[in-house]
Amino acid sequence: MGPKVRIDEVLAAIAFDANGLVASIAQQHDTGEVLMLAWMNREAVAETLTTGQVCYFSRSRGRLWRKGESSGQTQRLVELRLDCDGDAILLLVDQLGVACHTGRRSCFFRAARDGALVEIAVPTIAPELLYPNKD
Amino acid sequence: MGPKVRIDEVLAAIAFDANGLVASIAQQHDTGEVLMLAWMNREAVAETLTTGQVCYFSRSRGRLWRKGESSGQTQRLVELRLDCDGDAILLLVDQLGVACHTGRRSCFFRAARDGALVEIAVPTIAPELLYPNKD
Repeated sequence: MGPKVRIDEVLAAIAFDANGLVASIAQQHDTGEVLMLAWMNREAVAETLTTGQVCYFSRSRGRLWRKGESSGQTQRLVELRLDCDGDAILLLVDQLGVACHTGRRSCFFRAARDGALVEIAVPTIAPELLYPNKD
Repeated sequence: MGPKVRIDEVLAAIAFDANGLVASIAQQHDTGEVLMLAWMNREAVAETLTTGQVCYFSRSRGRLWRKGESSGQTQRLVELRLDCDGDAILLLVDQLGVACHTGRRSCFFRAARDGALVEIAVPTIAPELLYPNKD
C-alpha cells in the first residue's frame, strides 16, 4: 500500500465542516506549548503529510498557506493526530522561530487574570523583521 | 470595577464567528497535554469565568454543555487565554479523570503514522461507567 492510499485513509477519517475545513491546533512537540489554532482543508492535510512541512488553509486569503512562506517561521510536522469524532486535528510540530505574526512564540499571549486581559509574553522578533516586504 | 465589567471586557475581545461561537482548546495546565477542542458561546465564556468550571456550547445539542455534567469528568479552569486575533481560546484546565467520552484522557488518541491512523491510547475508564444512565 503506497503513501497516497494511506493519506486517503487519513483524509477519509476527517470530518471536514460545511466549508471543507477542520480546526487544527499546533503544539510544540517537546515543550507542549500550544502555539496557534488555524484551519486545514483536504489539500492542506495531504500536502502536510506528504512534505512534512505544515500547510494550512487561510480563510482570509482563500488559499493554501504554507506556514512560514512569508516570515520564514516554518513548522516541521512531527505527528498529526485526530480527535475522537474526527473534527479537530492536533499537529505536533517543531516551530522554527515564532508562530505568531506579532513576533511572539505563541499566539495565545493574552490571559484573563482577575477578569481582565493581560499580555503574558512579549515579541522575541520584531514583526517588521518577519515581514520585511510588507507595505 | 466589578467582576461583571471585567468579564464584559474579555468578551469584547473575542471574535465570535457567524454562529456566535469560538473554538476552544482545553490543555491540562501542568502536563501540557492537549485534551480536546470544543466550542464556546458568550454565555459559556461568561459562566466559565464566573464559576471557574469549564462550560462549552454543544453544537449537536444546541445548548450549554457543562463539562462533566453527565460523566462527572469536570474541568476546573486554571487560566483562559486568547489568541492574537481573538478567534481562538486556550483553556488551561485541571481535568478530573478523562476528557474524552471514549474513556481516554485525551480526545486526540489517533495518530497518522506511516500514513495510517493508529490508536496511541487506550480507555482508562469504561464508557459505560462514565454514562451509566445512557440508553
